[in-house]
Formats: sequence, C-alpha cells, structure tokens
Amino acid sequence: MSVLVVGSVALDTVETPFARAERVPGGSAVFFGAAASFFTEVRVVGVVGDDYPVDALAPLEARGVDLTGVERAAGESFFWAGKYSYDLNSRETLETRLGVFGDFSPTIPASYRDSDIVFLGNIDPTLQLRVLEQIPRPRLVAADTMNFWIEGTREPLIELLRHLDILFVNDEEARQLARDANLAKAARWIQDRGPGMVVIKKGEHGAILFADGWVFFTPGYPLEVVFDPTGAGDAFAGGFMGYLDFTGGRDPDDLRRAMVHGSTMGSYAVESFSIDRLANLSHDEVAGRVRTFREMTSFEIDLPATDS
Amino acid sequence: MSVLVVGSVALDTVETPFARAERVPGGSAVFFGAAASFFTEVRVVGVVGDDYPVDALAPLEARGVDLTGVERAAGESFFWAGKYSYDLNSRETLETRLGVFGDFSPTIPASYRDSDIVFLGNIDPTLQLRVLEQIPRPRLVAADTMNFWIEGTREPLIELLRHLDILFVNDEEARQLARDANLAKAARWIQDRGPGMVVIKKGEHGAILFADGWVFFTPGYPLEVVFDPTGAGDAFAGGFMGYLDFTGGRDPDDLRRAMVHGSTMGSYAVESFSIDRLANLSHDEVAGRVRTFREMTSFEIDLPATDS
Repeated sequence: MSVLVVGSVALDTVETPFARAERVPGGSAVFFGAAASFFTEVRVVGVVGDDYPVDALAPLEARGVDLTGVERAAGESFFWAGKYSYDLNSRETLETRLGVFGDFSPTIPASYRDSDIVFLGNIDPTLQLRVLEQIPRPRLVAADTMNFWIEGTREPLIELLRHLDILFVNDEEARQLARDANLAKAARWIQDRGPGMVVIKKGEHGAILFADGWVFFTPGYPLEVVFDPTGAGDAFAGGFMGYLDFTGGRDPDDLRRAMVHGSTMGSYAVESFSIDRLANLSHDEVAGRVRTFREMTSFEIDLPATDS
Repeated sequence: MSVLVVGSVALDTVETPFARAERVPGGSAVFFGAAASFFTEVRVVGVVGDDYPVDALAPLEARGVDLTGVERAAGESFFWAGKYSYDLNSRETLETRLGVFGDFSPTIPASYRDSDIVFLGNIDPTLQLRVLEQIPRPRLVAADTMNFWIEGTREPLIELLRHLDILFVNDEEARQLARDANLAKAARWIQDRGPGMVVIKKGEHGAILFADGWVFFTPGYPLEVVFDPTGAGDAFAGGFMGYLDFTGGRDPDDLRRAMVHGSTMGSYAVESFSIDRLANLSHDEVAGRVRTFREMTSFEIDLPATDS
C-alpha cells in the first residue's frame, strides 16, 4: 500500500480578498501528499532549492509522508505568486520563477520502485514518461496535466495517455485536449486514447468521473468561507488516489467513494492557506464531511411513473 | 392536485451551431407547463397576440394542460430571437419584442383559484404580487426572477420574497440579489427574507437546493448532444413543482426527488427545439433517467476512518 507522487514542491505567495500569505509551502506534490497521507503511505519525488525553509515540509513528515525523493539542489525553489479575484473564481498569476524546477529530471529512489500507485503531477509529459520507465510494475498510473503541455507538447502527452489508467484535468483542459466543446464527448475522446477513466475537475462546480460506460458526479462543497482555492485540485487527486490505494479495490463502488474522498480533501484544502488545514485535520472530520456529501447527493426512488 | 403557472407564452427563433428553428413555441409558462404536465394537472395564465399560430400549443393540450387562462389579445405575440455560441454555454439575444406581453396584467380565471401550487414565472415582481392577491390559499408558492427585475424593481422583488416558499434563480442572479459572491451566503441571505428554500440553477453544472439547514445537489446530465438549451431552467422548475404536487409531501426526501425530477425534465428539454422532446417523452423515459441520476450521484459509505 503506497502512492508515489511526482510533482512540484514550491513556495507560494498568495493574495486573497481576505488575507495574504508569503512564501508558504505549495505545489502539486505537497497538496497531493498532504491529502493522500490520510489514507495511505505517500512517497514524494520533487526538487527544492537551497532557499527552501528547512522545516517547511515538517507537517508532511508529521503525517508520515516519505520525502526521501525530494532533492535539494543549488539555486532557487519554484516560486509562484498569485492573486484571487473578489469572488475567488478567477486568479491572476503575478509571478512564476521555475528556479531549480526548470531543470527537474525526476530520479526515483530505489526504495520507491515497488510503489503500488503512481501519480504523475503536472510536469512535462516527456518527464512523466521517463518516471514510468523507472517503475517496473505499478498497479495503477494516473496523471494530471495543463493547458501549457496540451498546447506545447501535444505528441508526448498523447503518447503518455497510452500508459495511464486515469487522467485528471479540468473541464477547459479536457475540451482543449480533445478539441471538442462537449464534455461528455471530450471525455470519451480521451478514454479512447488510453486512460479508461477521466476525472474532470470543475472547481466550485464539483467533479465528474467518466468510467467504463458509467459516470459519477460529486458537487463542490458549499463552503460559506473559501479562504484560498490554491491546491484544491491537487488535494482532490490526493484524496482520490490515497483512498483508492487504501481500499485496494477498483470496482465502481470503490471509485465512487474515491471521488467523494477527493472532494472532501479538496474542500478542506481551501479552508486555509497552504496545507495548514490539511495538517490539522482529523479522520473524524474527513468521515463527517463524507457523510455530508452523501446527504447532499443521495436519494431514494419511490413510485416510479410508468406508461402502462 | 394542480399547479398554476403564470409566465410568458412566446414565439422563439433559435439558432444553434447545428440548426435553426423559426417562431416555435417558447416562453417560461410553455416549458414549465410541458414538464409539469407529466406529474400533475397544470393551469396556465399568459397572453398571446393574434399572430400566435392556432395549433402551436396543441402539444400542451394533448398533455392535458389547461389553457383557459391564456388570453388572446390584439397585437403581436412576445417574440424572442437568440443565437447560441459554438459550445452552447453562452447565447446572444438578437431580438426581443414584448408585443402584447408588455401590457400583460394577469387575470386568474375563477376555475384556477383553488390551485394547490402557484409558480410565478419570470415577470415584473409587482405583477407576481398581484397574482398572489387573486389566489386565496395556495399550499405552496414559488417564483423565478432575473437580473432585469433584480436591478430595476428591487423593492417589490424583496416584498415578493416574503410571500414565497421557494425562489428559483441562477447562480449569477442569486449573487446579484444578495450582493454576495459566495453562493452559500447568498442563498442564506435570500432565505432570511422569506423563501425557506432557494433553488439555484447552474445550467450544465446542475442545480442546488438550499433548504432548512440542509443542501441537495443534482448534476447536469452529461448529454453528448445538447441540441438547444432554451427553456431548460423552466422545464427544471416544471419538473420540480409538478413532482412535488404529485407527491403532496414536503419532507426532505420528497424535495430531493423533486430536484432530480426537475433535472430530468431540464435534461430532456434540451434534446430538441421548443417543447418537441417533452411532447414526445414517455413516463418510462422519465423514470429511466431518474434512475441514471441515482447511479451518477449515490454511493454507500464503508469503513469510515476514525481517530480512535
């Protein structure tokens, strides 16, 4: 039982209408790892610069996350600064400095090679493919990507699809990748190219799993205070993959529950800056929100109308 | 068991990326009535001009809808022309001519005054209030509104809220009415002013019911072909209110199922122009899609993680 995640380990400066955080831990591998650690053993592969605060990842270590694969290189850490609009539904990137992440070439430690599940965070698809070459026999492979790679490195990305069980994208990325405005058709286009499953993340509108002939939805959790949306999608993926590794199952009921656990972790992630909320979350709180999701979506059918 | 709807009875000219329809039946009362007629007796109050094709509402009559309250006045019928974008997610209004609808002052026929449920379609809130004065004791009152009235006639609209059990709005309208970007807070603001329940329609992203201390979601149905989105929101409201009248119940389980029946009728409405699909829909098809909604959203909880 172990999930390996390859992705960014960053420092984020985030401004929201409510507050501002300076150079706090961020990046896809950090949010993913924090969320997945509630369910399973997590192993991180990434790189930080020599400016990365020594204790910044202590909350991950405290949750048992294995950071053996986080290399420290000479230079600056990946830095992102962004500002959210008044309604938190859009954001402006103020600054991106790739630093040592610009030359990142993931090396998988020997102790990670038996990982059951591999999650390829949003990096160059050529590097995502190279990661897979280093892991003999993962039971499940998932990946995230973004518009930058869809536009700029389409061929390696389509090659990558052949190796995936699950692709995580947002609705805009799915449409852009499949070149189809209809989401259901876009998902099918992607599924036809490798991943049997596509998870489409829609932020406040929830998420959709397109699987083998069936579909499952989770809504966005209706928080009265969204503090900082950064990392919600990565926390979603972490909750989804972590839960799936924990159950070991792959049947539709396991996948449905994985979606709900993903939504739960995503919804908690946005309640504070960085991984602060995830670091201070209890299993009872996770289980409580899963129950709330059930109340918000489940219904019984009675009195079916018929024509006869 | 009867639902009274007051709203527009229009002629629509609709252009989508696939096809075009000229002067076909449209308007809130038409879509609402077609959908609600699957579940209960529907009575329509509206006005058409002397140019309205005599047999245009025959499909409603065939479904047993009572059109006694549809007045024919000298002049032109309400006409709307619109064009949808390539992805059907936005539309441009090409022309609106109010015609006789501009002087519409709803008169409730005596035979309608015992209606159990009243649905006030999207018209001037002052007229919506006048309708209520004519109906002694409805068991449930719901209304729809739009940005035009929120901006232009805010005071009568807020007065109307005091008389409502349920308000139907889209997410943008909810935010505009409550002057709060957070949807959960906007819903609470509205609930505090009268309607115990707010249904927020989000188009392809589904719908949310904010009720008394609980929330329920339905997703948008993932159609591979959306033919014409016109009227989806009105068909949703018709399915919701019609189902609720059919059950007679008001407990959370009834309301949950009402949401799903609303989503079902909305999803069928968009499969063709005008009310063509609703006019040719079977009860078995309705029941089938309700079951699909259940498969798309329901899950069982197992193995809740705990801290102990």
